[in-house]
Amino acid sequence: MAEGRRTGGTRSWWGWGTQEAALSPDEVSTLVERTRLMLPGHDFTDHPPPAPEDLPVPAPRIRVPDSLAALFSSDVTDRLSHSRGKAFRDVVRNLHGDVTHVADLVARPATEQDVVDILDFCGSANIAVVPYGGGSSVVGGVEPRVDGPAAILDLERLDEVLEVDRVSRAARIQAGALGPHLERRLRPAGLTLRHFPQSFEFSTLGGWLATRAGGHFATLYTHIDDLTESIRVVTPAGTSTSRRLPGSGAGPSPDRLFLGSEGTLGVITEAWMRLQDRPRFGVTASIGFDDFGAAVAATRTIAQSGLHPANCRLLDPAESRINAGASLADSLLIVAFESADHPVDAWLERAVEIAADHGGSVLSERRRGADDDRDSSATWRSSFIRMPYRRDALARRGVIVETFETACTWDRFETFHAAVTAAAQEAVDRVCGTGVVTCRFTHVYPDGPAPYYGVFAPGRWGSTVAQWDEIKQAVSEAIATNGGTITHHHAVGRDHRPWYDRQRPDPFAAALRAAKDVLDPAGVLNPGVLIDP
Amino acid sequence: MAEGRRTGGTRSWWGWGTQEAALSPDEVSTLVERTRLMLPGHDFTDHPPPAPEDLPVPAPRIRVPDSLAALFSSDVTDRLSHSRGKAFRDVVRNLHGDVTHVADLVARPATEQDVVDILDFCGSANIAVVPYGGGSSVVGGVEPRVDGPAAILDLERLDEVLEVDRVSRAARIQAGALGPHLERRLRPAGLTLRHFPQSFEFSTLGGWLATRAGGHFATLYTHIDDLTESIRVVTPAGTSTSRRLPGSGAGPSPDRLFLGSEGTLGVITEAWMRLQDRPRFGVTASIGFDDFGAAVAATRTIAQSGLHPANCRLLDPAESRINAGASLADSLLIVAFESADHPVDAWLERAVEIAADHGGSVLSERRRGADDDRDSSATWRSSFIRMPYRRDALARRGVIVETFETACTWDRFETFHAAVTAAAQEAVDRVCGTGVVTCRFTHVYPDGPAPYYGVFAPGRWGSTVAQWDEIKQAVSEAIATNGGTITHHHAVGRDHRPWYDRQRPDPFAAALRAAKDVLDPAGVLNPGVLIDP
Repeated sequence: MAEGRRTGGTRSWWGWGTQEAALSPDEVSTLVERTRLMLPGHDFTDHPPPAPEDLPVPAPRIRVPDSLAALFSSDVTDRLSHSRGKAFRDVVRNLHGDVTHVADLVARPATEQDVVDILDFCGSANIAVVPYGGGSSVVGGVEPRVDGPAAILDLERLDEVLEVDRVSRAARIQAGALGPHLERRLRPAGLTLRHFPQSFEFSTLGGWLATRAGGHFATLYTHIDDLTESIRVVTPAGTSTSRRLPGSGAGPSPDRLFLGSEGTLGVITEAWMRLQDRPRFGVTASIGFDDFGAAVAATRTIAQSGLHPANCRLLDPAESRINAGASLADSLLIVAFESADHPVDAWLERAVEIAADHGGSVLSERRRGADDDRDSSATWRSSFIRMPYRRDALARRGVIVETFETACTWDRFETFHAAVTAAAQEAVDRVCGTGVVTCRFTHVYPDGPAPYYGVFAPGRWGSTVAQWDEIKQAVSEAIATNGGTITHHHAVGRDHRPWYDRQRPDPFAAALRAAKDVLDPAGVLNPGVLIDP
Repeated sequence: MAEGRRTGGTRSWWGWGTQEAALSPDEVSTLVERTRLMLPGHDFTDHPPPAPEDLPVPAPRIRVPDSLAALFSSDVTDRLSHSRGKAFRDVVRNLHGDVTHVADLVARPATEQDVVDILDFCGSANIAVVPYGGGSSVVGGVEPRVDGPAAILDLERLDEVLEVDRVSRAARIQAGALGPHLERRLRPAGLTLRHFPQSFEFSTLGGWLATRAGGHFATLYTHIDDLTESIRVVTPAGTSTSRRLPGSGAGPSPDRLFLGSEGTLGVITEAWMRLQDRPRFGVTASIGFDDFGAAVAATRTIAQSGLHPANCRLLDPAESRINAGASLADSLLIVAFESADHPVDAWLERAVEIAADHGGSVLSERRRGADDDRDSSATWRSSFIRMPYRRDALARRGVIVETFETACTWDRFETFHAAVTAAAQEAVDRVCGTGVVTCRFTHVYPDGPAPYYGVFAPGRWGSTVAQWDEIKQAVSEAIATNGGTITHHHAVGRDHRPWYDRQRPDPFAAALRAAKDVLDPAGVLNPGVLIDP
């Protein structure tokens, strides 16, 4: 366990991040006052978390052999904090002291052989094993929703950057490395993975790979998949190592079977990742549009232009107001280019020209020279990265604050967006009386956007999970019916299963189950995720 | 069967393309004289192909039910021409009148239901089925090397472009569409798939998908995989249709299991493909280097620059001389940018600057304005596309002319290239006394190149297949030992199996076999490809 695991504070067992980084009382007041404007009449009474030691957590049902005992923890707070992800419904259930499906033990392998030994033991004893990176799942991906005994397999001690290949710009990194740690280790070589999901501080390479996480780049390298050169996976049937290759057409890609397998086929222990040179040039423009449809058309044209912006984030008016602090009725398009090799002004100029053709006007522009050390994405990132703390503060006060995300092709976006927004608004109004639905594009492709929706609604304390579940059901149906994906980058976990099962072609489902049966014959790996137990 | 299947001539049963497009006597003379300079002393006696009707082809062993009879052909030339791909060893075996493993029948489904019915029949009667696109395999991918009865399933009648979505720039295309046909159909919408493998005229969308073909783009969208939005596959266990999505993180990608499955898991019947606007701007530079190592370094820097050239083809001195007609001792780097949206001069300028930093000097540069209708790649393509006809003319004259291709990371390229070239040259010298080995990069990635090697050697007529097999064995061993992939875009087929099996992680092999067993329980789909029968 290296320094990188030290997240600069005490991890919250019930909510996001560290206790120390949670909002200050002043920040909470400001947030509450701002939210009150949006949700007038809501009761903002605070419901602080219970003390873990006061909760009726059942005793562990697992007897670990002496040879492995040192790898397992039965500490109650440890078990509680590892048994749920960090979705709104996870946080609220924690706040209520709900102890359903608490894992019996938490295992922390120190070596890959430990992983093998733990899988052997759990397989022979029929103990469910949930591979665990940073625990930031928002889809029930790390929650052992099983009747029998279950262990969490936390990879945190396998977190080293083992090799750096400067020439090919790649590094061999252990799966348990958290974002900031691996970036610190790559920095001396002038390299960066440049994968910055919102969970960056509290999620790991292995988690990103297992869930096909979406990251920094709005175009081209949107998912961690594209940054993956080779993967090493410990399965109950043996260890799988793919060859380091920049490209290959030798049969179906082995890596692509494990990418997105969410801990059901094996435990990813390390990977060779493709890196970037640290950018020296950066340009960003914020562009306002009176009309969301025109903004969408501009965004599509930029996505199809071959300019490949690093950032291309479209915010609808509600999103602009709430999350970019704009006092506008405008849609806001943030376009950015970056390069380690050359100035990218010409690229931005053309993107701005396209936006102008669709009625967009530049609100601000920022250029960064070769000698400017700041990272153009840093400012936005620090605000973005603190959003989950704000979510927690509101969740404690009975506000329903959650997001859902998808992707669809451009031709159907207008209908799709209208249907999904209508379904969300209708559900919010029905369930909560009122509420706000926002939309932004997190990633854009030549053939379609990845819209990301936010919901803010006044919940009834004690019912907010059930209320959210009802809203989620309605929006998921709308997404499925209108041909979107049930997830663009949040993964499937347990919570997206009904819609994932409809989306997934049946013959592929049969193939995946057959693969699972041969790689995990005891069926102990993350039961219920992707495939029925 | 639409007009697109009319390839403007009579398909050669034994060699490449059409009889009409084969080299003229004058072209043959020129080619022989040029080759004689390279291989002095070789006996260039022509060995024309036998007449199919003179060959001892066994009678078909299959009795087709009346309901399906109209879909099957037992014509001898049809059977011969479908039972081998178009590798050097295929062509030479045809020239020798070798009738081992000739398929019993050729099936031509006219509808997807026909595909289902044919698979049902073959599954119940234990008849091997080889899905067949354009038949341009160079790895034994379409050769029914089985003891029992076998049918070729030629998709040529399923070749329509069924829908075009101009907004998302995508089209639903049937798998049997040949390259020129589908491009003709997309042209009125101003769109292009822009996938131009050397086999373009005589290969199909379905073949490209099944073999993860490499195409036009040297960077970014190198493989057909990246251009695929969704796929429809008929398997014996049911039809698999993935949803049209620009991006998704919902579990392991269903499409990525079928991409590269080489007809072993099902028959791809159609796909939604991502298209490009037809380029209006194009710039190309040819850059010479005294030193191959410096040229490699320049190419690597360009590949890592984020400029994303459409073409970035490095030719070593021998390759430059033979295939670019240059009288240089130089390595030659051809870099091109293209766009439908904006001039790309700034991009090329920077690439040329990088090349100059490594000692490269521009030999020629070509710009295309917005009103210039010529396709910048057309000239090169027409020469490139006729190479297989030259190969055939030489194969008839006892010359061994073949290629092999791979990919590796940049850090090991120098060692890798030295080892592979040495192994190839040693084998060529040992087996043939003398010969020439050339190298070019067909595609380049930020983390490594895809080198493509050519071999020209004076064979002994009657033994050239065995001689090539010996050379191929040596180079494949060198590739495997030095960590390359046994194929970057030629696929695995039957010929690459020994090295593919070593490269493929064992747990993935087990998963793939399990998937095959559940999708093709009778084991009739392309037996011996990827997986043991």
